[in-house]
Amino acid sequence: MRRYVLITAGGTGQRMLHQTPKQFLELGGKPILVHTFAVFYKFDPHFQFVLVLPDKLIQYWQDWAKSNNFSVPHIVATGGPTRFHSVKSGLKMVPDNSVVAVHDGVRPLVAEDTIKRVFDCATRFGNAIPVIESKDSLRRIEFGINKPLERSTVRLVQTPQAFHAHLLKNAYNRNYQENFTDDASVLEAAGHRINLVDGNSENIKITTPEDLLIAETLIYRRNAANNIL
Amino acid sequence: MRRYVLITAGGTGQRMLHQTPKQFLELGGKPILVHTFAVFYKFDPHFQFVLVLPDKLIQYWQDWAKSNNFSVPHIVATGGPTRFHSVKSGLKMVPDNSVVAVHDGVRPLVAEDTIKRVFDCATRFGNAIPVIESKDSLRRIEFGINKPLERSTVRLVQTPQAFHAHLLKNAYNRNYQENFTDDASVLEAAGHRINLVDGNSENIKITTPEDLLIAETLIYRRNAANNIL
Repeated sequence: MRRYVLITAGGTGQRMLHQTPKQFLELGGKPILVHTFAVFYKFDPHFQFVLVLPDKLIQYWQDWAKSNNFSVPHIVATGGPTRFHSVKSGLKMVPDNSVVAVHDGVRPLVAEDTIKRVFDCATRFGNAIPVIESKDSLRRIEFGINKPLERSTVRLVQTPQAFHAHLLKNAYNRNYQENFTDDASVLEAAGHRINLVDGNSENIKITTPEDLLIAETLIYRRNAANNIL
Repeated sequence: MRRYVLITAGGTGQRMLHQTPKQFLELGGKPILVHTFAVFYKFDPHFQFVLVLPDKLIQYWQDWAKSNNFSVPHIVATGGPTRFHSVKSGLKMVPDNSVVAVHDGVRPLVAEDTIKRVFDCATRFGNAIPVIESKDSLRRIEFGINKPLERSTVRLVQTPQAFHAHLLKNAYNRNYQENFTDDASVLEAAGHRINLVDGNSENIKITTPEDLLIAETLIYRRNAANNIL
């Protein structure tokens, strides 16, 4: 089956105190989004890429890509008002008989091992999402009372989340609900059980200036380890 | 009321791939533990400090402190086989009529604002613990099935956790249970409700080599902002 990577870059960066949308902020001289592309492309140059961008950023991206000779082939799709609408829009570019991984554009630190585990499991079992355990104790607030939540039973959910495309596209044919925080929750609403694989702890979602600083440090180390600095 | 800070440094660093226990690994030329002391001391030099160390590291620490002119006054207590036993040991040095904050020695990035909120709330209401929200979606595994867990109802728990000392000491008079992952869980077992205040997202617990790298980056930035580099 052909393998698609749908990269969501719909955010407009309100949490970052910057004019530049966060997916275009630079890490080591390149937009975050370009680092994200690079990890997947390095893992498998035969991936088919779909990039979902807000309408008003498409020209910006295409200008950037042209003047920087960005060479990873990809299709651009127009995002919608929520993540749900953006993914749904991107999925129109993905054939039913493929495996598609949906990934946050602002998670450039996904490990190749994580990508491998997610695709392997989803190819075989229909879906897979990467998760890690929390290092902190957890509590849960219900009806104004907070109580301990057994840490070993909880998982923090990352991306890429991968699926047989026809299953995910079918699931996205429903109406938007507020509790659709990721693709797994949409598939689950269509009656499927979700398969968990190990993520990697560095695979953070960059949403604050401090995350950007952390990502810069970790990317620098990774590139040094790969001798590509 | 007098204010105590009980710093737990009982770990022996098995997750760090180092010979040096993690609380003694260096950040910017000083052990992590020293950075942790420094934040509290800067916030209030009148805090009374109790440092809980494994028996076999006490001499090492005292030699280090002497040869490096470590000048924060503190009492050393001997740790036990678990965090519970270590805190219980340290609490023997804390008078009943004080407010005591228990803090992980490997959380040097606690913000002064967090320390303030925790002490203010605990002084007034008997206890307080700092928490933050998760940025990732969450799932919970029960009976082998994983389901979404509404993120807005969950909190990640940090330290310092502060208490009227007589309440915490009384709570620690019970037998150890495996679900005592922090001090709040011990106090709760004694029938108290726990008060939550905002923590700070940088306040990570250093347990892996990657955490150490992240902490180094964040401490460097903090010190640069404070002009103390």
